[in-house]
Amino acid sequence: MPWTPPGEAVSQSPSSETPQTPAGPSRRDVVAAAPLAVILPAAALTEEAVAAPSGLAPRQLPARVLPVPDTVSAELQARIAAGYLPGWDSVPQTTAAWKELVARSVADVAPFLPGIKQYFRIDVQPGEIAGVKVFTITPADLPPENRDRLLVHVHGGGYVLYPGEAGAGEGMLMAGYGRFKVVSIDYRMPPDFPFPAALDDAMAVWRALLRDHDPRKMAIFGSSAGGGLTMAMILRSKAEGLPLPAAIAPGTPWADLTNDGDSIKANAYVDNILVADTGWAGAAAPLYAGGHDLRDPLISPIYGDFSGFPPAILTSGTRDLFLSNTVRTHRKLRQAGVEAELQVFEGQSHAQFLDPTIPEAAEAFAELTRFMKSHLAL
Amino acid sequence: MPWTPPGEAVSQSPSSETPQTPAGPSRRDVVAAAPLAVILPAAALTEEAVAAPSGLAPRQLPARVLPVPDTVSAELQARIAAGYLPGWDSVPQTTAAWKELVARSVADVAPFLPGIKQYFRIDVQPGEIAGVKVFTITPADLPPENRDRLLVHVHGGGYVLYPGEAGAGEGMLMAGYGRFKVVSIDYRMPPDFPFPAALDDAMAVWRALLRDHDPRKMAIFGSSAGGGLTMAMILRSKAEGLPLPAAIAPGTPWADLTNDGDSIKANAYVDNILVADTGWAGAAAPLYAGGHDLRDPLISPIYGDFSGFPPAILTSGTRDLFLSNTVRTHRKLRQAGVEAELQVFEGQSHAQFLDPTIPEAAEAFAELTRFMKSHLAL
Repeated sequence: MPWTPPGEAVSQSPSSETPQTPAGPSRRDVVAAAPLAVILPAAALTEEAVAAPSGLAPRQLPARVLPVPDTVSAELQARIAAGYLPGWDSVPQTTAAWKELVARSVADVAPFLPGIKQYFRIDVQPGEIAGVKVFTITPADLPPENRDRLLVHVHGGGYVLYPGEAGAGEGMLMAGYGRFKVVSIDYRMPPDFPFPAALDDAMAVWRALLRDHDPRKMAIFGSSAGGGLTMAMILRSKAEGLPLPAAIAPGTPWADLTNDGDSIKANAYVDNILVADTGWAGAAAPLYAGGHDLRDPLISPIYGDFSGFPPAILTSGTRDLFLSNTVRTHRKLRQAGVEAELQVFEGQSHAQFLDPTIPEAAEAFAELTRFMKSHLAL
Repeated sequence: MPWTPPGEAVSQSPSSETPQTPAGPSRRDVVAAAPLAVILPAAALTEEAVAAPSGLAPRQLPARVLPVPDTVSAELQARIAAGYLPGWDSVPQTTAAWKELVARSVADVAPFLPGIKQYFRIDVQPGEIAGVKVFTITPADLPPENRDRLLVHVHGGGYVLYPGEAGAGEGMLMAGYGRFKVVSIDYRMPPDFPFPAALDDAMAVWRALLRDHDPRKMAIFGSSAGGGLTMAMILRSKAEGLPLPAAIAPGTPWADLTNDGDSIKANAYVDNILVADTGWAGAAAPLYAGGHDLRDPLISPIYGDFSGFPPAILTSGTRDLFLSNTVRTHRKLRQAGVEAELQVFEGQSHAQFLDPTIPEAAEAFAELTRFMKSHLAL
């Protein structure tokens, strides 16, 4: 379509979809054009039909087969062909169950950390800043131009998974690919410490770092919950009159904990990491909020004021359940006049660009590195 | 997820998806975790299962209900709630049938053109450049800084629809929103004139314009087939040693006429404009190629060499069947070191940002205008 004539699509109700092919429709055309509701069994309709947030008629999608694309690396093809991430639909019902899920998240990641450190030639030291646990990650060959630069990392995992060194994995990748020094914040999390503990911890570290670091030489980054927390840190720094970093890199940010956004539904079962909002990640939102309003901008930054934000680079994938979180954040930053770049990777599910075994991860981090180098003072 | 531990997803086969919730899985968990193939009736599987381009196991998606999101304007919500665009699945089987579809495309658009001209206060004059039909579009209030600038427009419509003034609609919007002078090329199309007629015509106009216009003050833009043609014009200009424009704006470019790309399948039936590659647009590819290899970079520019391309801004939507065409083009431009911006609009189907009755169109064209102004010499 070159452009959609105003009103054309709207003037047609779904029930008037009968094709008007001048040449005379084939039988195949007629079948394909029949309202999908007629073809689909009633059992295929779910309670989501009732929940159309706009109040307008939802679309019925037929069951489909989604092939593995050949337009990505062989390594990513294997990831796409894999089943849904085990445990995605485990929704803990008790505090003890949450803690077991948390323990499992750590156990899942721990075996890979030594290899990551060795491969990327980085040193990882546990420590404390302003009473908050951190991991300081330093490349063996820190380039002279990065000596005074510092990247601050806040990890993802729905504000509940990956405490301790497991959460620093993304920070290790950024230090490794970009040869930057990184401080990764091991913030407190629910079920013991709901909002605003994570943000309080992150802000305490940020305030402390500002004492002996030039904010023009610093950035804040993180993905998923870490992307949302990155945005919340800027909102809170603005409110408190604190200096802002020179750049931010919210990867597929969990900007809206109300689970609003089109891709939450459109990419359901297409994304093989988060899969759908009926899994643990959906349940993590109220767990984190701990009774606070999910629309509080410090919990769901998309409802905040982005004016004056630092330059931002946002990353997502075409299959990402949080593609809408990402593009809504990008558009809102642009509407506020903020310099903001968007990169969306073919075929990738949620935060899949953080998998260091796919070449697309190197590509994503190369873009982040370029962005940091162009915005951070020497 | 903060990052995917290498090998974790891959090490799990789809059949090992049984949840291991420490707290003990609920019945709901077990049902949700059962391999989808068990739940889906065999009739839900289509021939696409056989066509997995990578040879890896495809994913079975259940039938779903996709609500209209409330994260877009009310006007766009109404567009999203509308049924599939009438005629999307009309696949002409004869030359006469194609010509009737073409005539209908013109008839669909023609009634809206007077209102567009009046609303945007633009003058549209038919003419000829180098023997090729064009429409010259001039805003009533051409700003001084745009007096010497010229935007060259190549329209979309699968290289077959919207001959004549109907094809100039997108050019009118660019002239209207951005207050630029635009030359819209009414290139020859199949069934009478397959490839390379369209490209030959566009290049003839480009060569002629170069005689009395500074390429540093010009841009080329267009969406869908027009986005692909924009890319092909740059490839051919490079090959012929011609000067390149200062910027390009390929909107949701039809960069791959082989219909490769993940979103062609992932967004099938989600997009309500193109809907699926089984419609007329899929059939337009061989019609345009006219026996030439669909992987010829002048037909499918994604297979070309993007080094040395001008700065580019690309636009798509989260529901766009051509989202992959867009992000693959963006990534390939970036891989070639080209300055390239990406904007993806929440909830939009193919080229829906060209609908002037939604406020998101003004937003998209404001970004294009900013991009042009920052790259075109005065």
